[in-house]
Amino acid sequence: MTDLHPGVADPVMDTMNFLNEVTLNYPEAISFAPGRPYEEFFDTEQIFVHLRRYLDHLAAQGRSPAEVRRAMFQYGPSAGLIRELIADSLRVDEGIDVPAESIVVTVGCQEAMFLTLRALISGPDDVLLVSSPCYVGITGAARLLDAEVVAVEERENGLSCADLEAVVLAERVRGRRPRAVYVVPDHSNPSGVTMPLEARHELLALADRLDLIILEDSPYRLVSPGAQVPTLKSLDQDRRVIHLGSYAKSLFPAARVGYAVADQSVLKDDGTTSLLADELAKIKSMITVNTSALSQAAVAGALLASGGQVSRLNTEVAAHYGDTMQVALRGLEREFPAERRSRLGVSWNAPSGGLFLTLQVAFPADDDALGRSARDFGVVWTPMSYFHPEGGGARTIRLSTSYLSHADVEEGLRRLADFIESEVAAAHARG
Amino acid sequence: MTDLHPGVADPVMDTMNFLNEVTLNYPEAISFAPGRPYEEFFDTEQIFVHLRRYLDHLAAQGRSPAEVRRAMFQYGPSAGLIRELIADSLRVDEGIDVPAESIVVTVGCQEAMFLTLRALISGPDDVLLVSSPCYVGITGAARLLDAEVVAVEERENGLSCADLEAVVLAERVRGRRPRAVYVVPDHSNPSGVTMPLEARHELLALADRLDLIILEDSPYRLVSPGAQVPTLKSLDQDRRVIHLGSYAKSLFPAARVGYAVADQSVLKDDGTTSLLADELAKIKSMITVNTSALSQAAVAGALLASGGQVSRLNTEVAAHYGDTMQVALRGLEREFPAERRSRLGVSWNAPSGGLFLTLQVAFPADDDALGRSARDFGVVWTPMSYFHPEGGGARTIRLSTSYLSHADVEEGLRRLADFIESEVAAAHARG
Repeated sequence: MTDLHPGVADPVMDTMNFLNEVTLNYPEAISFAPGRPYEEFFDTEQIFVHLRRYLDHLAAQGRSPAEVRRAMFQYGPSAGLIRELIADSLRVDEGIDVPAESIVVTVGCQEAMFLTLRALISGPDDVLLVSSPCYVGITGAARLLDAEVVAVEERENGLSCADLEAVVLAERVRGRRPRAVYVVPDHSNPSGVTMPLEARHELLALADRLDLIILEDSPYRLVSPGAQVPTLKSLDQDRRVIHLGSYAKSLFPAARVGYAVADQSVLKDDGTTSLLADELAKIKSMITVNTSALSQAAVAGALLASGGQVSRLNTEVAAHYGDTMQVALRGLEREFPAERRSRLGVSWNAPSGGLFLTLQVAFPADDDALGRSARDFGVVWTPMSYFHPEGGGARTIRLSTSYLSHADVEEGLRRLADFIESEVAAAHARG
Repeated sequence: MTDLHPGVADPVMDTMNFLNEVTLNYPEAISFAPGRPYEEFFDTEQIFVHLRRYLDHLAAQGRSPAEVRRAMFQYGPSAGLIRELIADSLRVDEGIDVPAESIVVTVGCQEAMFLTLRALISGPDDVLLVSSPCYVGITGAARLLDAEVVAVEERENGLSCADLEAVVLAERVRGRRPRAVYVVPDHSNPSGVTMPLEARHELLALADRLDLIILEDSPYRLVSPGAQVPTLKSLDQDRRVIHLGSYAKSLFPAARVGYAVADQSVLKDDGTTSLLADELAKIKSMITVNTSALSQAAVAGALLASGGQVSRLNTEVAAHYGDTMQVALRGLEREFPAERRSRLGVSWNAPSGGLFLTLQVAFPADDDALGRSARDFGVVWTPMSYFHPEGGGARTIRLSTSYLSHADVEEGLRRLADFIESEVAAAHARG
């Protein structure tokens, strides 16, 4: 055996492995674990339609066949081919009005996170703050870059600015430089919480006062029904916000197309300034060179199908996810009427959209419990502790509803209620 | 202005910027700079053909329409969808016989490099060795990871094992741990040199003796005419070689599909072992999650078109590049007959394939000279100094022939000869 020490062991990834094993070992279980899109909206033939629509669009713009061929086959610009279309859709969908030059098209939102962290975290004293519980994609990217992560514990309504300020000041006392704070302001993964408008204004003002960058990751807005609170980026007067975009939920994950909106000016080592988006593109050129032209074309074709408006494209999808969330919330009410709820010590939040909700229980919702839940009750969920970089969430369960049919949600909740009943009974029996 | 210090300034990238500016400022110049595929072989409609062929292949394998839909739209395995097809083609095309599990499909070869370096370089004492002059993709990736790079200067016939051993021992004396050596053994970028069979055996033995990993990057084999020297990986008895694969030249760059062959066993921090490919896939899950399914499908469809044999698919392409190289070599002979060659102090190598050749000149082939060449003579090339991480190549020019028509190669060399004549005359005039 070649004795390599890659040193990439990651507690988060290894924990997720347990969930993956459970999922593999109990394929018949109903799983509330994956935050994956519902597949019934996908249609394989649409790939061809999307691609053809984008090619026609290029031709209609006056591109010659040789230019179209070059765009589709040759090395392309690291910053992306479809920045204008994304900029147009950001204006109508997200209230974000930025020039196309401030956008970098990335291999999914994950690469946007990675590039941004690589640009912002430049020394061992630099710190990334995360609203905790926290999406594992950002903590995983930080770990690959050896970037220090400090958690700001969420309250019931999400991130508190007072808590954030306290953490920033404490880190500064320790000689460290908090550079950025990562938030999922809309229907957060994993907690399902949405940051109210007032808190958004407060956060922007605080970021300006403390010289912090806000990393806004918001993949669930456009698949949630009804009016949404404005994006942080749309309220950003001081270029404090880097908006991290994803088409994984609003279009489809396999394309691996996301983007970063980075309209900040950057002071470089040599004293000159440049646009942060240009710096991100340079970093990207050394990681993935450019984003697949096929994927960009498919995404562009889908955008063009709805006149460049993702929200219009997703009316039906958003309504579906909203319905599923309601089915889940009604199911919880049915399975846990007031008396049972109180007896079992169960409570949950009621997200207005998104894919996730969280359930408090009266016992440790750990891997052992997950194993029993899958084996004995045929239902899988995610321990919330996976999402707490500094510990926490020991008695909380994340339920993702997006991937399941309504019937499976209802049956899954019946099983979950039986599992919870059994755990509480076992705890009582142990005394 | 938001005062960011991303700290990503990179001398290599900034140097390349000059070349990019020259290219933009003199669009009519004939450019020997880009190592890009020739575009006349591309046909936009083939995208649809490739995708359809892969979908048909999945159906023929017994996948249901729902499974095909899932493969094309949903999140996919980080290690890739088309590993079996790649493993099959590696057996017939490259003599590399590995199980599909040891392959990770990546967003171009660049991501394969990045993942591999992230896995191998785990501390500040770890060092990557590169055969120098060296492809900038590897040094750029190393820089993003703050990984130390030490150059082993190539000789006329490529990397010398004695030189490599001397550098490894010197680094060890300094308390550092050379982990891996990066080589482009076939028709190297930038120098055009091919490592002879004997040197390959010697390098493998040395790597085993010194406990080094060899990173073999070989994108030009399958676009070069005639028989090739066996890949290092095909000769690798001790799992010393990580083979880094690219379809950018053999199929098309815009798909952004590459791969790493990493069949090494890895000792993890917790004392357990795993396959290096699995560790690379975990790292990938935090950078790009998975490679675009559309891109993988297009590549797979192209592979399937030739019965899974890239070499057969590329017979015509390889012949074309071989012809272009011959046109360039004959052009150099014509422009620089013996007397002129000697008077101007010009010499060049004669690669048997690939996209690049190198030209020695008697004056500094630097950015200033490049600027004059573009402005006054309408011909662009790459200063070889760009490819020397520790300096060198000051009087060497890289010529890439791949992107140009035969007529442009001939006209470009005429212009280049006039430019060289002018530089030498100016040097004489300065005394």
